[in-house]
Amino acid sequence: VIVLQLSSRTKMNTINWLISRIQEEKLLGGAELLCKLAYVSHKDGVILLIGGTLERLLHGAEEKELVKQYKDGTLKPFLYHDRNNFHDFKNKKQLFLTSGECLQLIKHDLDNLRARQEKHVPEVPYAKLYPGKNILNTLATSGLLVQMYPLHNFEELETLKEVWYGKVQVFSQPINAVRNYFGESIALYFSFLGFFTLSLFYRSIFSLILYFLTDKTFNGNMLMAIINIVWSTIFLECWKRKSNKMAFQWGMLHRVEEFEEPRKGFEGPLGINPVTGKKEPIRLPGEWRSLNFIHSFLFVSFSLLVSVLMMLAYLWAKTLAEKYCAIHRNTQSYVIAVLPNVGYAIGVIILNRTYLKLARVFTEWENHRLASTHEYHLVAKLLLFYFFNNFGLLFYAAFYMQDFTEVSEDVATQLITYQILDQIMKSIVPYWINKRKLKKLKQSSETRGGPVLQHVLIEGGLDAYKGLIDDYLEMFLMFGYMMFFSSIFPLASVCCFLNSITEIQLSALKLCDNFQRPFPVPASNIGIWQLAFKCFVILAIIVNCAFLGMSAEFQAVFGDYTGIHLIILVFTFEHLIMGFVTLIEHLIPDVPKNIEIQLKKFEYESRQALKCEKLQQTYIKDNQKLFSSAQRRERQI
Amino acid sequence: VIVLQLSSRTKMNTINWLISRIQEEKLLGGAELLCKLAYVSHKDGVILLIGGTLERLLHGAEEKELVKQYKDGTLKPFLYHDRNNFHDFKNKKQLFLTSGECLQLIKHDLDNLRARQEKHVPEVPYAKLYPGKNILNTLATSGLLVQMYPLHNFEELETLKEVWYGKVQVFSQPINAVRNYFGESIALYFSFLGFFTLSLFYRSIFSLILYFLTDKTFNGNMLMAIINIVWSTIFLECWKRKSNKMAFQWGMLHRVEEFEEPRKGFEGPLGINPVTGKKEPIRLPGEWRSLNFIHSFLFVSFSLLVSVLMMLAYLWAKTLAEKYCAIHRNTQSYVIAVLPNVGYAIGVIILNRTYLKLARVFTEWENHRLASTHEYHLVAKLLLFYFFNNFGLLFYAAFYMQDFTEVSEDVATQLITYQILDQIMKSIVPYWINKRKLKKLKQSSETRGGPVLQHVLIEGGLDAYKGLIDDYLEMFLMFGYMMFFSSIFPLASVCCFLNSITEIQLSALKLCDNFQRPFPVPASNIGIWQLAFKCFVILAIIVNCAFLGMSAEFQAVFGDYTGIHLIILVFTFEHLIMGFVTLIEHLIPDVPKNIEIQLKKFEYESRQALKCEKLQQTYIKDNQKLFSSAQRRERQI
Repeated sequence: VIVLQLSSRTKMNTINWLISRIQEEKLLGGAELLCKLAYVSHKDGVILLIGGTLERLLHGAEEKELVKQYKDGTLKPFLYHDRNNFHDFKNKKQLFLTSGECLQLIKHDLDNLRARQEKHVPEVPYAKLYPGKNILNTLATSGLLVQMYPLHNFEELETLKEVWYGKVQVFSQPINAVRNYFGESIALYFSFLGFFTLSLFYRSIFSLILYFLTDKTFNGNMLMAIINIVWSTIFLECWKRKSNKMAFQWGMLHRVEEFEEPRKGFEGPLGINPVTGKKEPIRLPGEWRSLNFIHSFLFVSFSLLVSVLMMLAYLWAKTLAEKYCAIHRNTQSYVIAVLPNVGYAIGVIILNRTYLKLARVFTEWENHRLASTHEYHLVAKLLLFYFFNNFGLLFYAAFYMQDFTEVSEDVATQLITYQILDQIMKSIVPYWINKRKLKKLKQSSETRGGPVLQHVLIEGGLDAYKGLIDDYLEMFLMFGYMMFFSSIFPLASVCCFLNSITEIQLSALKLCDNFQRPFPVPASNIGIWQLAFKCFVILAIIVNCAFLGMSAEFQAVFGDYTGIHLIILVFTFEHLIMGFVTLIEHLIPDVPKNIEIQLKKFEYESRQALKCEKLQQTYIKDNQKLFSSAQRRERQI
Repeated sequence: VIVLQLSSRTKMNTINWLISRIQEEKLLGGAELLCKLAYVSHKDGVILLIGGTLERLLHGAEEKELVKQYKDGTLKPFLYHDRNNFHDFKNKKQLFLTSGECLQLIKHDLDNLRARQEKHVPEVPYAKLYPGKNILNTLATSGLLVQMYPLHNFEELETLKEVWYGKVQVFSQPINAVRNYFGESIALYFSFLGFFTLSLFYRSIFSLILYFLTDKTFNGNMLMAIINIVWSTIFLECWKRKSNKMAFQWGMLHRVEEFEEPRKGFEGPLGINPVTGKKEPIRLPGEWRSLNFIHSFLFVSFSLLVSVLMMLAYLWAKTLAEKYCAIHRNTQSYVIAVLPNVGYAIGVIILNRTYLKLARVFTEWENHRLASTHEYHLVAKLLLFYFFNNFGLLFYAAFYMQDFTEVSEDVATQLITYQILDQIMKSIVPYWINKRKLKKLKQSSETRGGPVLQHVLIEGGLDAYKGLIDDYLEMFLMFGYMMFFSSIFPLASVCCFLNSITEIQLSALKLCDNFQRPFPVPASNIGIWQLAFKCFVILAIIVNCAFLGMSAEFQAVFGDYTGIHLIILVFTFEHLIMGFVTLIEHLIPDVPKNIEIQLKKFEYESRQALKCEKLQQTYIKDNQKLFSSAQRRERQI
């Protein structure tokens, strides 16, 4: 069930109108859902509980073409009149649709609740309506709708928690259960994180062996650089196949892409969408948003400048600390020697988090029409800055100063500080704050209503889930540290591995306990992040080849070559690797063979079905003609 | 109309059976086409003429979902019952379908003529049949079907010839008329060639100005290298947009990809296609074709070896000639000095043509199931060798010997020899041979039958069109000479421009007069060649950056940098350009905005139509139920 929390100043007429619209039949333009006025108070406002009958949800599933397992084991879009032939329908009717799917269907119907002939929301003259305008959006912008959130299903959640992080199971997360409860988008994130952790496991073992076998004075390990390139290519290719396999099993690959509606935050004059012909906010053809983009550009430049200033401050502090240490040789000096590094690491984290918040604001100002382009611009901004802020100093030290000990130290400090600090800031502190909040909420809600209402109020008091961007960003940084610097600091992969393990646990904990239940978002892949990781792999090839060329071992092997020729050799090598990686990407198909066949078969069958339908129609028409002419003749007789 | 020429030993029973199968109704498994036995002779065998009524072709057009212009200007798949609403249908019924489309539809029906219960072709017990087996394929493999070719439409052909190469019109080919007559695939080739020529025109003007303004002693012109990179990127991006625009207007982008059937040459045991469930030759899962690929690999390696040997022979002959010239200084010595170059250029051309023929044979041996993979492997083989054979020596001279005068000379000789020799070999000689052949054919056919039959026999005597591969290869080489070496030999683009102009004229001449009319092949882009040209652009960036680094001008500009730093600078520059080109490719959409909107609209509307249809069906079903229950009640009364 979904909760709609309205402001306490909402009039009774408005509430009744909203309830009637939600309950009304689909053909009359309603949502045909169950709706109950649960609670009205001055403090918490008006609480509406919304649900749907199984019958209604099944029809919705047919309409949205949810893909389900058929009795013969293949996957097919659900058809209501064929429902008994679907796997598990007869036995477990209530469990046929997962709770995530139910939420998704109900949300879809609510989101499509549109105005008819009303000029404005009853009793609220300033909340203007016109035929086809989205009702919930209007209520939200006029301040009447405070929040809308789905309720946790405690029974299911407890079972999920138990198998997910009750026992210590790092490499076998219950991804399907996560998908059933939280939806595909979140399940894909956890699956990606899990796959990353597993890949890191093998890599760290290898790194440890290498670390203890070779001497520790190398500057850029040749073997490690090659391993980096091979590992990352294989990792991304395997992930693509694994991701497609999962998406196939969840029926995400059977879907045709939806026609994206403008995202909620988009502001534009009303007009007619040239594709769908629907009335919706559009972007005027001549509109020029260059000013907004200039703002964003200035913001990014300024942030990069701040980052550079911090680097300079660090380098200055470092020199001071070194001077101090050179004079005073006591225990205190050790602490002081490390201080700039730790300070810089903390500064980087703080800048990261501030930038994330500001980037959201600036991207919102850019006023993108589609949610996908909005996300694209946001992530692009983030990646640019995060790359610069986190790795800028390290690249400077490695390439310009060629000081590998410094780099090694910095990577170690940054990784360890990051690990400790970020996880405390991101998970443990909010968890603790949340516990206190929950306690307070429980106390205050105990006085009111039954146990269901208590849950509603408690969950309403939690924060809404913020999406996966910071989680992906963190993985992205780990990946970067490891890809770029593990040939200098070979234990980077071990640090990342440890971080990933705790990350899985903490993210899961956070998701289940610290936030309102998020609405499930269907997704067939990790989207823009796939591209982001691919860019990193390409960058990593360049960086690792450069380290390779600078490594003493490499120079020893190709001792005959000097100066210019050595560099030409390295660059030739790099181009060959780049070509090879591109070739491999082309040669390994993204979708496993058997899945490809099944998908093609599905497409072929639906195409054939369409043809048959057309033939039948002509047949029916011909029959009708025959029938009517026969009638005419009869009449004449 | 299409001509089927059967062997003279075909029995009358077989002929009658074939005719009846071709004429039979579609529902009974025939092709429902017109078929006439035109001529039987001991020498020419049996000639069947095949055509279709307009009615039949229109139904075929609906079935194949040919896209036509609707009365409101949009493009829609043709629907027979809606035919009067299509643009130009009422006025010019006969011209509504282009002659290319008619051929395509008739060919499709003939290709889908399949056996029913027959065990073998009547009177030919060794030509085994089983239900669903392709009849024409069986006739062809059993030697009964000698050839199948469409007849030229002389009226249309003469009009086309007049506007195409009657007048000198280099930059405005009648691409739409070419498409209507020869089909999309050939039209796209000519359009690509034309676009290439036009781009070359601007480039050559620029090159000429540069050539006369700067001093002629440069080795690697800096400006030219930059122009190369910019020009090629823009050229390919613009072509993609232009190509998509044309494909859209021809209705090629509205189509869903067809499910590819196995190509005719594929040999495999009969089995069931896992996707379509049809009986057809399949590849067994465990089958291992490594031996065939080893053969191909050895063939390619051996060819490359031959190419290297020829290079060595050239270098040896060159030294000899230089020695001779150093002693004897007369007019003869000039000729002898040029001889090795000319000899090498001729050798390259001969190797090219031999390799092309052999590559076809080896790719055939690889026994690919699909026509697309077959073409892919063939073209990949060709590109590798052509690249090596044509540019190998030049790269050797440029990078290893750093002898830019030599490179400049070689490029000039190769380009000019190529231009003169190849066009004589490819177009003028065959044209002349053909003329004699035609004369002979005319003389021998004059004694027999009417004028139509004469044409049939004359065209039957011509060679079948061999496809576009050698034409594309030639363009590919021109592109390569210009992209790689125009910074050394700036007149390369002028040579290529001249070559392209004659190429358009000669290719058109060849297509119209020297061969049988080819069957039109629908295509939405130039396929694998787009990828091939893109690879060349990337290679060209690397090569041009290298030349840039080696150029005296560049070294003068960055005089502060020496040795290692200069090279690092060049490579950094190269990486930046590569990144920039990739970025530009991502940012410029392949399909122009307005076409994208129209395509999306089309998709949206057909999706909506599908939904409506489904609703209607449920409505009809409900009505039927009501109707039958009413009937039952009536009966009870």
